[in-house]
Amino acid sequence: MNIYPSKLLESAVTELSRLPGIGRKTALRLALHLLRRDLTEVEAFGNAVIKLRKEIRYCNECHNISDTEVCSICASAKRDRSTVCVVETIRDVMAIENTGQMSGVYHVLGGIISPMEGIGPEELTIESLVNRVAEGTVKEVVLALPTTIEGDTTNFYLYRRLKDFPLKITTIARGVSIGDELEFTDEVTLGRSILNRTLYEVMFAKKS
Amino acid sequence: MNIYPSKLLESAVTELSRLPGIGRKTALRLALHLLRRDLTEVEAFGNAVIKLRKEIRYCNECHNISDTEVCSICASAKRDRSTVCVVETIRDVMAIENTGQMSGVYHVLGGIISPMEGIGPEELTIESLVNRVAEGTVKEVVLALPTTIEGDTTNFYLYRRLKDFPLKITTIARGVSIGDELEFTDEVTLGRSILNRTLYEVMFAKKS
Repeated sequence: MNIYPSKLLESAVTELSRLPGIGRKTALRLALHLLRRDLTEVEAFGNAVIKLRKEIRYCNECHNISDTEVCSICASAKRDRSTVCVVETIRDVMAIENTGQMSGVYHVLGGIISPMEGIGPEELTIESLVNRVAEGTVKEVVLALPTTIEGDTTNFYLYRRLKDFPLKITTIARGVSIGDELEFTDEVTLGRSILNRTLYEVMFAKKS
Repeated sequence: MNIYPSKLLESAVTELSRLPGIGRKTALRLALHLLRRDLTEVEAFGNAVIKLRKEIRYCNECHNISDTEVCSICASAKRDRSTVCVVETIRDVMAIENTGQMSGVYHVLGGIISPMEGIGPEELTIESLVNRVAEGTVKEVVLALPTTIEGDTTNFYLYRRLKDFPLKITTIARGVSIGDELEFTDEVTLGRSILNRTLYEVMFAKKS
């Protein structure tokens, strides 16, 4: 049964409900909200989204989203180009940038190896990473992938592809989150935190 | 600190986060989702929203959203034009239509009287309702407004404006929701359900 009083409304609701996590009820609420806004505002909204998809570019070097051929991080003279931090997505770049702890550059894989979802190494920017490393300036590759089975699989695959180059391959530390109680930490994480225990002076120095 | 790797992305995130209930984190997730979709799909999305705002019309009679001068409900020969159901918003029309219990037509007020939010009778389509009633074909006005203080205030105002016309003014029944336990029903609602108790045969006839 068609309960929409207008085809225009129905079509806007259908489009909005294609967004992840937005059902038809929420989509209707958003559409009616947009109807109350000024036309210029709604045009700005629609055009910003179309423009994003139409004009977006990806950095030639690290595959991060960029407005230019080479992204602002790769182009920055302040960045240590001998350290490459490998991440799954653009959001991970933003999350790590937010910490201010990575002085190197990035490499966005565009996903992780997942046989379940049919994602193999060739779907990712792994060849491009190997080529970057083969150029010889990279001294350390920091694997900052999710701490899941797929993440571990990808870490292992990358390790095998990169291990014969003269460089250090590291992964982000796994351990107890800041502010967590030990008794509520899962045993695998707690076990890892014991296994990879860090010298007090090193931990202290890194903190400051 | 600007953590967005692209102005295009930042501007799309800003626009998406203006939608109600969508923060910057969700907006980023939506923007990155749109980046993975085909350009034609994203254009369809953006244009549907702009078109909705640009071309939407409201029914001359009931003020419901419409693609034409008179909406499909008001234009329908199957509808009983002597019964007018007064609602706050377009969503209420859709909700009541969904029940299939209203054979009359609607009148969308566009809000309810709320001194707290500075909404007075003149902001609403009340004059238009009075004019409709003055034409003489309306025999019953069903007030289907929210069961809140503002709803009651608006009901009372409408009652005063309409009481001298030769018609029946009714309000939707208030009572215990279908499936609710009496012991968990608030006392005002429970009290109303006793006060407005309905003949068993009438209730039974209405149900089937």
